[in-house]
Amino acid sequence: MEDKKKRMSEWVSSLQAQLIDIFEGIEKEATLDQYEEDPKQFVHRSWTREGGGGGDMAILEGRVFEKAGVNVSTVFGEFSEEFRSQIPGAEENPQFWASGISVVIHPRNPHVPIIHMNTRMILTQKLWFGGGSDLTPILPLEKDTQDFHAALKNTCDAFDINYYETFKKWADEYFYLPHRQESRGVGGIFYDYLNSGDWEKDFEFTQAVGRTFANIYLDIVNRHLNKSWTEQDRKRQLKKRGRYVEFNLLYDRGTLFGLKTGGHVEAILMSLPPLVEWRG
Amino acid sequence: MEDKKKRMSEWVSSLQAQLIDIFEGIEKEATLDQYEEDPKQFVHRSWTREGGGGGDMAILEGRVFEKAGVNVSTVFGEFSEEFRSQIPGAEENPQFWASGISVVIHPRNPHVPIIHMNTRMILTQKLWFGGGSDLTPILPLEKDTQDFHAALKNTCDAFDINYYETFKKWADEYFYLPHRQESRGVGGIFYDYLNSGDWEKDFEFTQAVGRTFANIYLDIVNRHLNKSWTEQDRKRQLKKRGRYVEFNLLYDRGTLFGLKTGGHVEAILMSLPPLVEWRG
Repeated sequence: MEDKKKRMSEWVSSLQAQLIDIFEGIEKEATLDQYEEDPKQFVHRSWTREGGGGGDMAILEGRVFEKAGVNVSTVFGEFSEEFRSQIPGAEENPQFWASGISVVIHPRNPHVPIIHMNTRMILTQKLWFGGGSDLTPILPLEKDTQDFHAALKNTCDAFDINYYETFKKWADEYFYLPHRQESRGVGGIFYDYLNSGDWEKDFEFTQAVGRTFANIYLDIVNRHLNKSWTEQDRKRQLKKRGRYVEFNLLYDRGTLFGLKTGGHVEAILMSLPPLVEWRG
Repeated sequence: MEDKKKRMSEWVSSLQAQLIDIFEGIEKEATLDQYEEDPKQFVHRSWTREGGGGGDMAILEGRVFEKAGVNVSTVFGEFSEEFRSQIPGAEENPQFWASGISVVIHPRNPHVPIIHMNTRMILTQKLWFGGGSDLTPILPLEKDTQDFHAALKNTCDAFDINYYETFKKWADEYFYLPHRQESRGVGGIFYDYLNSGDWEKDFEFTQAVGRTFANIYLDIVNRHLNKSWTEQDRKRQLKKRGRYVEFNLLYDRGTLFGLKTGGHVEAILMSLPPLVEWRG
């Protein structure tokens, strides 16, 4: 088990480093005049968790990526009495270990979709993986949506022919704002409590989700990166970001659970957009 | 009872009209150059509730009041099974009637505090009043806080010598963000389930809270209205507004209850600030 924990936590850190390279590369190379400022770099803020473990939050507040957060954490300890009954395998023994990576990208250019990706491995008396990725375009293009889903399906199908359908449905149900009767975006995949009985395979799937997200998002970003936008596009973006905030604060399990269990507030709320409008 | 319902619903509408006059007056008369645009007026949007009743949402998106919402509603019908057990007097008979006014003001000038005021009368098999007002300065001044609390205390004391202490404490507990370990602002009063046994007195108290809020806020606005602000002041304001959003979406009972019981979304989320930052 120690070896598995080590491999997972090392992998999230290596993915973090790769993503930072990718995003900083794009940040530097974009040529559109509307990116007025100089390219920026990620700033790391590491944090420790009272009770065990900690994380490294890397945030880029840049010209292309108005706010990009790539947070990794490896935490351990005991669940409080209040939460034991809610966590598989924690009822009798509250000890847990968890390692994961969480990415939320808010591009400045309204032509470039918002994206979220997260994977985690959780160990109590049980062990499972969870994660997913979903895309939130401001100015949706059918081709982006199709290619994003096709990439996820392709990855899922390599592991289990039922994964994509199941995990896509889960995302459709999860990333939904009942009070607005709106989806957060165009969906993706969401999964939790994944334990096929073959740890190597599940870990490989987790890594494949990370790679797939990086590749398809890079592709989609490059399609739109140097398209100029109007003031009206920007207004639509700031309004759509409001929906993102509403989802994360009203419904997102990870956000609510993290805040209630004394998680690192800045890392949890890293997902909130840099600038948001509720008006008009 | 019909007479009481009529008097309450007529009063909230008359307070709405008075507040609109007051805010539009200030919007027009401000002289500071930083209010670049022309003065604006409130726009009314009335809505009806499936199941009974409706409301009138008045919103000003102006130069002095970047977003001011004054919403009145009178609704009736039946609570769904899910919520009956949570509402006093609704367990056996789910019928209800409720009338109230809700005000949230987000001034453009960071020297002028954000304010919230709400009063309501609710009738199930029981009858009660609820409401309160709290102040959220961006650049807090001791005198504003003192005067705001003194005005509320003065009003409370005229009705019951225990009201202020009880209702202030309730506000301190209510308007608190545990995850930030921060208060939303400098407090005020908050009360619910108020039924002294003397409806006339309770109704008079409700009206006095409305008047007191209007008078003291007008006073505080006028102190700061024509003070110029810096870019740094504005940044502090946009960041503080983020905390306001976090409070309303994570903790505010009225917001969460309203969204879950199929309330009018635009009216409920009228409280969200016009422009918000989570960065830096």
